[in-house]
Amino acid sequence: MHVDLNSDLGESFGMFKVGRDEEILRLVSSANIACGFHAGDFSVMHRTIRLAAAGGAALGAHPGLPDLQGFGRRWLGYAPAEVYDLVLYQIGALAALAKGEGLVLRHVKPHGALYNRAAVDPEIAAAVAAAVRDFSPALRLFGPSGSRLIEAGAEAGLATVSEVFADRNYNEDGTLVSRGQPGAMLHDPEEIARRVAGMVKSGKVRSITGQTIALKVETICLHGDEPGALSAAQAIREVLRTAGITVKAW
Amino acid sequence: MHVDLNSDLGESFGMFKVGRDEEILRLVSSANIACGFHAGDFSVMHRTIRLAAAGGAALGAHPGLPDLQGFGRRWLGYAPAEVYDLVLYQIGALAALAKGEGLVLRHVKPHGALYNRAAVDPEIAAAVAAAVRDFSPALRLFGPSGSRLIEAGAEAGLATVSEVFADRNYNEDGTLVSRGQPGAMLHDPEEIARRVAGMVKSGKVRSITGQTIALKVETICLHGDEPGALSAAQAIREVLRTAGITVKAW
Amino acid sequence: MHVDLNSDLGESFGMFKVGRDEEILRLVSSANIACGFHAGDFSVMHRTIRLAAAGGAALGAHPGLPDLQGFGRRWLGYAPAEVYDLVLYQIGALAALAKGEGLVLRHVKPHGALYNRAAVDPEIAAAVAAAVRDFSPALRLFGPSGSRLIEAGAEAGLATVSEVFADRNYNEDGTLVSRGQPGAMLHDPEEIARRVAGMVKSGKVRSITGQTIALKVETICLHGDEPGALSAAQAIREVLRTAGITVKAW
Amino acid sequence: MHVDLNSDLGESFGMFKVGRDEEILRLVSSANIACGFHAGDFSVMHRTIRLAAAGGAALGAHPGLPDLQGFGRRWLGYAPAEVYDLVLYQIGALAALAKGEGLVLRHVKPHGALYNRAAVDPEIAAAVAAAVRDFSPALRLFGPSGSRLIEAGAEAGLATVSEVFADRNYNEDGTLVSRGQPGAMLHDPEEIARRVAGMVKSGKVRSITGQTIALKVETICLHGDEPGALSAAQAIREVLRTAGITVKAW
Repeated sequence: MHVDLNSDLGESFGMFKVGRDEEILRLVSSANIACGFHAGDFSVMHRTIRLAAAGGAALGAHPGLPDLQGFGRRWLGYAPAEVYDLVLYQIGALAALAKGEGLVLRHVKPHGALYNRAAVDPEIAAAVAAAVRDFSPALRLFGPSGSRLIEAGAEAGLATVSEVFADRNYNEDGTLVSRGQPGAMLHDPEEIARRVAGMVKSGKVRSITGQTIALKVETICLHGDEPGALSAAQAIREVLRTAGITVKAW
Repeated sequence: MHVDLNSDLGESFGMFKVGRDEEILRLVSSANIACGFHAGDFSVMHRTIRLAAAGGAALGAHPGLPDLQGFGRRWLGYAPAEVYDLVLYQIGALAALAKGEGLVLRHVKPHGALYNRAAVDPEIAAAVAAAVRDFSPALRLFGPSGSRLIEAGAEAGLATVSEVFADRNYNEDGTLVSRGQPGAMLHDPEEIARRVAGMVKSGKVRSITGQTIALKVETICLHGDEPGALSAAQAIREVLRTAGITVKAW
Repeated sequence: MHVDLNSDLGESFGMFKVGRDEEILRLVSSANIACGFHAGDFSVMHRTIRLAAAGGAALGAHPGLPDLQGFGRRWLGYAPAEVYDLVLYQIGALAALAKGEGLVLRHVKPHGALYNRAAVDPEIAAAVAAAVRDFSPALRLFGPSGSRLIEAGAEAGLATVSEVFADRNYNEDGTLVSRGQPGAMLHDPEEIARRVAGMVKSGKVRSITGQTIALKVETICLHGDEPGALSAAQAIREVLRTAGITVKAW
Repeated sequence: MHVDLNSDLGESFGMFKVGRDEEILRLVSSANIACGFHAGDFSVMHRTIRLAAAGGAALGAHPGLPDLQGFGRRWLGYAPAEVYDLVLYQIGALAALAKGEGLVLRHVKPHGALYNRAAVDPEIAAAVAAAVRDFSPALRLFGPSGSRLIEAGAEAGLATVSEVFADRNYNEDGTLVSRGQPGAMLHDPEEIARRVAGMVKSGKVRSITGQTIALKVETICLHGDEPGALSAAQAIREVLRTAGITVKAW
């Protein structure tokens, strides 16, 4: 039994430092690297590629919307054709820097508002999937478990990886409880870790309303930007070890 | 006998329209496409790739410094390692959009201040050449005839293409007379065209001081952003035809 | 009887040239100057202030959303407090450059998506109006005739100026027919001019469905970015002259 | 006897957090607030104005070059007329947000490469001074002790405030030892504090070569972005208190 742990990395920009990339890289098997639009710049990207490769993580592109101030968390109303262009642009940019190090990308995970929109909007999902496939059909597409993005990836002939969030509560329909809602976030590292192990083993989780719902769990998103998040990540890693679940990239 | 004619294209940005790409594409054999840093955006790039390919031009990347307001014409003091990163980033981004259309890039020509700096600064020249080679040793590197950039390309094992400017005067040492100087620019289309044909046939040109100097002429840069420039481009094309010189990409 | 004619100016950015400011300035009484967020930069702003003042136009700020690629036409989801901040920032920036020329601003007209959103969203409208009033209660607020923005301006104690569009069709409820709809735009300069004169004299216009609707007409927006728009602007100016309607700023 | 302590604040941008503004504000008498070009955004600026005013600091503009990635530390080759425009733009923007809170700016201190360039280039210094004076002759201009910027301020009729750096070594000619050089930075909080008290009392400091040089010390720049810097700031404050030197803004 195995599962992938992933984290969003390389989110610094020039002098603006974000995240604890070195620490979280000790825990994850897949690194999603920002591509210069919502975060990251060309030199941050290069450094992060080196760091992630040294840590043994599979490299992936983490393309976002061109909105540094909003950190890619605002939907900007792009048409599907524009989404195709901006995703393909970013994958290509990161892949070139990886190629310079003799490395190849393994996956793509859209960021923020692009991820959320692609989860529910079939046209945006198809645009993202087409961009990934047109760059390389060998790339895996990460998306929320049960989402339109996972469907679009499959339709495009891509291998997909269904993602769950360790520290977020789920609605009965399998969507995430919005950040603004009470109970959206889980905070206790031990509870988070137990919950993750349960999800991986059973493919089920308890929704915020108390219903048991099915979730495909192929990768789990960890955050390393706050001390609490890092503790939770460490606890998850330990619980998985104890449960005999191997952590590795797809 | 043959020569390449190239032009810088895809320099619009969002609603900001620049250039007469469709008209100049009828005249050139190589298209240098802006990559989103000094000009161009991901969707302009995609449209320009399609337009240039439809016109039969060889596709090339035209990476510049990240300075939209200054149009990449100001040197920003980047270290060689940063130049390597930003050139590789841009080549990768454009190549990915080309790949989506089933097309490959043939060459790279740096833009503006990056071109000018790489012409005289061996470290910057080497950084540009390394980025091009690391993306693909099959890419040709365009640079000013007799420049450090051409040297650096050769040292990196790249095929180089020496460029001259049809509408610019040269100093005795083979460098361009600076734009600010009197006599820097030539304006008469017929004179420009005759001069170009002479350069291609003889490998020589008269400097601003009246000396005959040697210039390797493998590609000629044409501009299409002003009516006068377009007339000069048409005159060059016609003079080359009359002289029996074939226009084609390397 | 009198009316104001206004136009959006100073929308160039660095080397990217937009509009025919000199020509349209011969026709309008109020100049709305872009403030560096959706278009314009600090030096374009300075030049445009000088140009508009030389042409005798009343100076106004034309603040937009920080989105150069989208030209401020995409709504970015800003909270009212952020809208307050970004409007006040831009008014202050333009007013400072005007002050350097010994000039003061007379009005504020929001741009693009900010204008459209403030027309219908009371909270955004109130945020815009508060920013204008906090800079100076002497500034006039331009907004679409009959809109929430005009209401918010009045509630904030500002003098308002109700704007109509010469070349756009109206729905029965007084809102503009969306650009994407058939019949949204009028193209015949003579028809546009007659229609404008009728609106000014009667305070009424025929909607796209053929109904006569009331519109408060205090200023009319002219465009100068295309030859057709400039012809229409000239025709409007001539028709107003013939009808004995004086053109002047409020 | 009194001296001013100042710090650069409001250098966050959107989600990118920089500095320990709340802590450093307990120690300084003047706050230099970034204006959205090299750091800060309109909402960060508004929050910082409130925070600084609540802490009792005199408010000042800290205009920089439009270069977020380079944090305004690269000279971008702007002409003096452009520098005038960009400084005036930023002062106006910040002053407007302050006005919204019923507050006025007291001073202007240029940032990074703009500060360094204005220190040695009379034309750039004059452009900065003219922008400050044209906004308001009541604003004080901060500049390096003994620099061209201080001279230009005086020539423009402005009150100037000569600044020294607590944690930097000086050359014999009164200029700062460049950051890249050995010994450029001082690290020991106690040594830094003693040195500062000595400078304030005597108007002299020991250069890196051991010579005693004269320095006009009207304000001292403190940093709060690192734990060590904060300790040094606290030590300086304490040493000044012990020496009976009052800390207050000019």
